[in-house]
Amino acid sequence: MQRILSTQLPARIGEPVRLAGWVHRRRLLKSVAFLILRDRAGLSQVVVTDPGVRAEVEAVGEETAVEVTGKAVANPAAPAGVEVVEPLVRVLGAPAQPPPFDLFRPELGATLPTQLDHASLSLRHATRATALRHSAAAAAGFRSTLDGLGFVEVHTPKIVASSTESGANVFSIDYFGRPAFLAQSPQFYKQMMVGVFERVYEVGPVFRAEPHETGRHLAQYTSLDAELGFVEDHRDVMAVLTEVIRGMVGATGLPAAMPAEFPAVHFTEALKIAGAAQDSGSGPADLAPADERAVGEWALREHGSDFVFVTGYPMAKRPFYTHPDPARPGYTNGFDLLFRGVELVTGGQRLHRYEDYVAALAARGEPLAPYESYVETFRHGMPPHGGFAIGLERFVARLTGATNVREVTAFPRDRHRLAP
Amino acid sequence: MQRILSTQLPARIGEPVRLAGWVHRRRLLKSVAFLILRDRAGLSQVVVTDPGVRAEVEAVGEETAVEVTGKAVANPAAPAGVEVVEPLVRVLGAPAQPPPFDLFRPELGATLPTQLDHASLSLRHATRATALRHSAAAAAGFRSTLDGLGFVEVHTPKIVASSTESGANVFSIDYFGRPAFLAQSPQFYKQMMVGVFERVYEVGPVFRAEPHETGRHLAQYTSLDAELGFVEDHRDVMAVLTEVIRGMVGATGLPAAMPAEFPAVHFTEALKIAGAAQDSGSGPADLAPADERAVGEWALREHGSDFVFVTGYPMAKRPFYTHPDPARPGYTNGFDLLFRGVELVTGGQRLHRYEDYVAALAARGEPLAPYESYVETFRHGMPPHGGFAIGLERFVARLTGATNVREVTAFPRDRHRLAP
Repeated sequence: MQRILSTQLPARIGEPVRLAGWVHRRRLLKSVAFLILRDRAGLSQVVVTDPGVRAEVEAVGEETAVEVTGKAVANPAAPAGVEVVEPLVRVLGAPAQPPPFDLFRPELGATLPTQLDHASLSLRHATRATALRHSAAAAAGFRSTLDGLGFVEVHTPKIVASSTESGANVFSIDYFGRPAFLAQSPQFYKQMMVGVFERVYEVGPVFRAEPHETGRHLAQYTSLDAELGFVEDHRDVMAVLTEVIRGMVGATGLPAAMPAEFPAVHFTEALKIAGAAQDSGSGPADLAPADERAVGEWALREHGSDFVFVTGYPMAKRPFYTHPDPARPGYTNGFDLLFRGVELVTGGQRLHRYEDYVAALAARGEPLAPYESYVETFRHGMPPHGGFAIGLERFVARLTGATNVREVTAFPRDRHRLAP
Repeated sequence: MQRILSTQLPARIGEPVRLAGWVHRRRLLKSVAFLILRDRAGLSQVVVTDPGVRAEVEAVGEETAVEVTGKAVANPAAPAGVEVVEPLVRVLGAPAQPPPFDLFRPELGATLPTQLDHASLSLRHATRATALRHSAAAAAGFRSTLDGLGFVEVHTPKIVASSTESGANVFSIDYFGRPAFLAQSPQFYKQMMVGVFERVYEVGPVFRAEPHETGRHLAQYTSLDAELGFVEDHRDVMAVLTEVIRGMVGATGLPAAMPAEFPAVHFTEALKIAGAAQDSGSGPADLAPADERAVGEWALREHGSDFVFVTGYPMAKRPFYTHPDPARPGYTNGFDLLFRGVELVTGGQRLHRYEDYVAALAARGEPLAPYESYVETFRHGMPPHGGFAIGLERFVARLTGATNVREVTAFPRDRHRLAP
């Protein structure tokens, strides 16, 4: 007999069935015992009256992997109106010890560090598993939106000869006796691939040796990167990003306030909204977390939007490949997208002329040599282009209301955590 | 006017059009000049008669990024029966120097090392770009097949505390002052996630410090990993893999000989087919490349199949988590899938009982401690399960007939190559 899933039970009433999954919970009443079976689709109720089978059910602990054969019968009082009677239970994988915390309660009682120490077990809990399902859906929504827009998926090196973003927060690696680094982003490679496919994306790990332990930083996270050529300026990039976000949120089925167009404010306007003290001289070059919260509240209040673009960040805090705003010296065509008051996406238009790269590196006092194979791309005819990078874990955390990205990451890596 | 792609031209005959792309080639005849424009969809022919425009076209070199506005007219002699006349040409990105090799010829003349040194340029060539499109299609086929079978995508750590497969060929990393390693596979994590979702997959980079430089090994490659629970044995895994391969080949549109069921031979049979000298004592524990070729030829000849499973590999050469064949001591439920005579996939049923892991490590004289957080999973009720890993680059190389995986990898990494 073919195994069926819990969700297929209502279609099998009156028939013999075979289920498999984990013993989620047992309720041992006087005249009857209930075994709640958990499979990848949900829960089913198994009713045990036979004394021999009952003895077996009493012997198997929660989280035992079992197979149950029996008969599906209608019972309006049971979940989904169906339960399994006259069961036979076969143990497929017995636990060596009981779980250190209960998985059948609505909330995981264990602290986050305990959950993370026992990740392969805590992830079985509905709240943790559901967050990871949302994560998979969001990544699928990212890809399908971009596939529909003619983007091509690429896979780029994670071991690089020089750090991509800056010298800081980079992991060193012994590469056949030579020094190398873990890529902090696929930035250079996705730009290089614009010359090949015009429009590319990558879903992959990036690595940051974050010295601080916060609820929004990880040493490894999944970056959803896209880059597109033949743009007018950063606004074409923002239009694609808006579609992508809509596709990602839609794929999860979770609610978020998204007007037809996301509001966008210039950096200088954002400072005013946030009421941030603007130095009369150079002024602040970035938004503080409190500023981002204030701008997020403004966007929801004034535009009914959980998302808001902040455009035109000052040159000082953006990477050297950022395209300046031709109309406003000192400012750039770089933007951030805030989601519920937290920076979720960084993007913008990039430089595309060889001489501009040479000048930009010189202006920062940086040598050209470490960037040689990247900058070579721009010697051979590159169109105006731009792109963005979305942190998957941060997106899912904001969307699900998790306060720490570790709650929505299967096996997080940080300064102190290298296992499991 | 909205930009259109080359493939949209035939629908616009008689209309003004705007194209953008790269100057693929120029043909400067006496009375007329042709500019062949390359965009992400293909090529278009632009006809230049105006002397002023002609002078501009003469001045822009191949690989200049340009925008062309003009009028689409029918011409049965032109590619796709359409060309652009009365053009205006605007330079979007001028090259700083001419390409070191021609991109418009049917084959790239440069040697493979030269191509790889100038990857961002050589990948623009049709042969190289097409291979990467096949790679993207194959990965999409992998995911869509598994999505249809109820698998969930996961993202797992690439920085690990102990090597996953063996102590050899592992890259060391400085992890906040502690030693750590780059993951050689997501093996342990995908097994752990079987306890959560039953069926999981991951598309991601894996890292092998391969000491040898061959046409089939890379220091980083894209591994397509899947793992599924509640299997009877390895044959359930092989059935899923067969569907996945069919989905991947189908997504590329390239031909491959695939009967309804892929032939499968036991390791001992494979040795006989290959005519390998079988030691009367313990016998060989693996197939040599020549043996794989012979088995591949046999599968094509006898079963009309480019794919053939070799099952029941001896314990000696399989990792400690491999499930033994209960009916045949010394052999396993581990398999390889050969594609046109080369190993493409390794897979099998895994151990699922805690005590079996403890015994397997003890039998190999390995301590339990480095595997503690992995083995803990099996203390908490795991079903019989198995999975497989497909090397994406190797798959695309075999499918396209490339003799070296570097020909189908955007930016390969090996012992000698760390840039671009």
